[in-house]
Amino acid sequence: MRTVDLIWKKREGGELTAAEIHFLIQGFVDGTIPDYQMSAWCMAVYFQGMTFEECTALTLEMAHSGAVVDLSAIPGIKVDKHSTGGVGDKTSLVLLPMVAAAGVPVAKMSGRGLGHTGGTLDKLESLPGVSTALNRDAFLAQVSRIGIALAGQTGNLVPADKKLYGLRDVTATVESIPLIASSIVSKKLAAGADAVVLDVKFGDGAFMSQYDKAVELARTMVEIGKRAGRRFIAVLSDMNQPLGNAIGNSLEVAEAIATLQNQGPADLTELCSILGGYMIWLGEKADGPEQGKELALEMLRSGKAFAKFREMVAAQGGAPESLDHPERLAAAPFIQEVVFPGEGWVERVDCRALGLTAMTLGAGRARLDDVIRPEVGLTLKVKVGDRLTPQSVLGEVHAASPDVAARAAREVLNAIHLASKPVAKQPLIAAVIS
Amino acid sequence: MRTVDLIWKKREGGELTAAEIHFLIQGFVDGTIPDYQMSAWCMAVYFQGMTFEECTALTLEMAHSGAVVDLSAIPGIKVDKHSTGGVGDKTSLVLLPMVAAAGVPVAKMSGRGLGHTGGTLDKLESLPGVSTALNRDAFLAQVSRIGIALAGQTGNLVPADKKLYGLRDVTATVESIPLIASSIVSKKLAAGADAVVLDVKFGDGAFMSQYDKAVELARTMVEIGKRAGRRFIAVLSDMNQPLGNAIGNSLEVAEAIATLQNQGPADLTELCSILGGYMIWLGEKADGPEQGKELALEMLRSGKAFAKFREMVAAQGGAPESLDHPERLAAAPFIQEVVFPGEGWVERVDCRALGLTAMTLGAGRARLDDVIRPEVGLTLKVKVGDRLTPQSVLGEVHAASPDVAARAAREVLNAIHLASKPVAKQPLIAAVIS
Repeated sequence: MRTVDLIWKKREGGELTAAEIHFLIQGFVDGTIPDYQMSAWCMAVYFQGMTFEECTALTLEMAHSGAVVDLSAIPGIKVDKHSTGGVGDKTSLVLLPMVAAAGVPVAKMSGRGLGHTGGTLDKLESLPGVSTALNRDAFLAQVSRIGIALAGQTGNLVPADKKLYGLRDVTATVESIPLIASSIVSKKLAAGADAVVLDVKFGDGAFMSQYDKAVELARTMVEIGKRAGRRFIAVLSDMNQPLGNAIGNSLEVAEAIATLQNQGPADLTELCSILGGYMIWLGEKADGPEQGKELALEMLRSGKAFAKFREMVAAQGGAPESLDHPERLAAAPFIQEVVFPGEGWVERVDCRALGLTAMTLGAGRARLDDVIRPEVGLTLKVKVGDRLTPQSVLGEVHAASPDVAARAAREVLNAIHLASKPVAKQPLIAAVIS
Repeated sequence: MRTVDLIWKKREGGELTAAEIHFLIQGFVDGTIPDYQMSAWCMAVYFQGMTFEECTALTLEMAHSGAVVDLSAIPGIKVDKHSTGGVGDKTSLVLLPMVAAAGVPVAKMSGRGLGHTGGTLDKLESLPGVSTALNRDAFLAQVSRIGIALAGQTGNLVPADKKLYGLRDVTATVESIPLIASSIVSKKLAAGADAVVLDVKFGDGAFMSQYDKAVELARTMVEIGKRAGRRFIAVLSDMNQPLGNAIGNSLEVAEAIATLQNQGPADLTELCSILGGYMIWLGEKADGPEQGKELALEMLRSGKAFAKFREMVAAQGGAPESLDHPERLAAAPFIQEVVFPGEGWVERVDCRALGLTAMTLGAGRARLDDVIRPEVGLTLKVKVGDRLTPQSVLGEVHAASPDVAARAAREVLNAIHLASKPVAKQPLIAAVIS
């Protein structure tokens, strides 16, 4: 087998066999296939796509390129969750304790934020003392003991994906649905859960802004997951405006705490209960997703979800008392109200721009080695369809200095677009694919 | 400027500016842009193409990436020639002495053969003593003195093209018309001639088998040449059957000598006189290509072209007397006649297969480091449209051993396809693009 022939085959729109994909990925990982051939192949895939068979072969090959987590020692059906990332997306912080409180074991490995989207690990670490660096044994032991752990990746999982993603990132081959799907699903397979609920976001603030592309990505992931013998369900959720009201690590944790106390924003509560419903159903603690959703909401109302979160924070080194005063977490030196001068109905929000504003404040990373300031960020209390009157307070900017705060406040104002007539509210969930 | 953005721009079908192409090629040559980015860019070019502006910028950038030959010390208009390569293509050996005899100075740098096509240098070197390794000064001095030199590349011309071609070869990005055109034209520009006649071959035995692709390549090269300020003319010639009757180095030299003595095959004589006509016209030794063609044929009839060839062979270290007994050049130990068992009209010839058969005999290279046997090869005396009767002798196989000869003879038979009704002859020249 010659690599150049496999590149040629894909360039011509052919379908690679599992053996050919094995040859490619194996060679890429062991260094016998150079980066320049792999990047040319990725670009050919960008243009020609891959069949579900090819995607599945690539996914399995990557999933088994390194260590694979074995969750079999934990009783019950382990259900994982993945979000394609968005602005203000603190879902995991609410959803996972909710699901764990309902009796579904959660062994969740999360990532960090980059660009306009945040990462769950960064958010969780804005709680004083909380560590997300658990080793394999501690991670599994915590799940066995309290039913939940939320940590960074333990062990050398999917090295093929790491290497391939690094290459795609510098060769303009990231935006390929088969490659994105294979990358995500390979990590989920290696993480060991029996079933996975995918939160696939679409819209301006999402990684995949076009709805039809997001649907295609969701379909591809669900199909690969099934072919790999796991249950995958994808929920298509709107990311044309931030989720909830807070953007920024401590601010988002405070909002997650409020939501766990059943006092959070409606959209965040809704998304968490729907995703939670599917997870609880897949974990066989409910007879269907609707019943699962009811149970998820009950976990909020009863305080059980919040109690589970406290338990997790304590287990991972944090002080549970810090959760009783979430307002103290976000202690940026300058807080500026954002006051809107005009009047009308909110027609559109530049969601991605708001994510970038938060990043510029210090809440996110422009580069992988940037250091995050947990206390900065912004809040935005209005949603598409809301009526604004003159001098409406849209929210706040939490910043390290007054000039940065002032610039960010202007950016927030610029991100809000008004109509002179009433505007319909956007449905949060557009579709469920299973 | 970031390389990944330029790859992205091309991937999305955008047009790169000259400054962006300069950045890419400069960085690629000096090593600051890694191969894996360049190969991804090449694959994006394969799918999205390039405008004439981009092709010209790329061509000029490559042409000036290394040494450039200065022919200004040689009086007159220097006209170069390039063939895209074919089977039995000994055109240069006849054409260049013809043109030089007509008074147009010829400073020709040629290449070697690979795969099913031969190379002029290999053919010329099958003449005992002849060297094609001339240094720059000797090369120019010879052209000044006798009006013709035919050598390998002198100096480090177009290193960017060498590096890029090497990368394309292993990343399935060779077959891109803008990249092929830029590669060829950059070498012609660096070789320093004022005008260039291109022999762009199409058909089964050509590098570009499809006619419309060959036309596109020809148009692109002529357009780039013009934009670079040189006169380029492209002749599209048929390569659905071998040119002339001989394939193999010594056999082809013998045929070239016969043609220089005006006793060669009709197709080879016709192609040389037409290409020669354009070269003589561009070199301002005739008022038009038709007059140029007449002059070219006169050079054959008068013996002046052959005399010029003898002069060149002597100047490059060969023995002119060897040209008086060309039949002695090809001294393969085994010669086997190829006798056709059937009856009918030749409808089609597998031209590429014949080239590969000659290569397998030892006349060509499967790999760059293969060593050529000048004496082996084959002759094929029939053309499409010829009538074959039972026991027609199609030609001969000249081989190193009898079993190899027998296998090659079978391959030659398999390459001839008959019809039961008369078949029209193929026109040799399909179009001229200027």
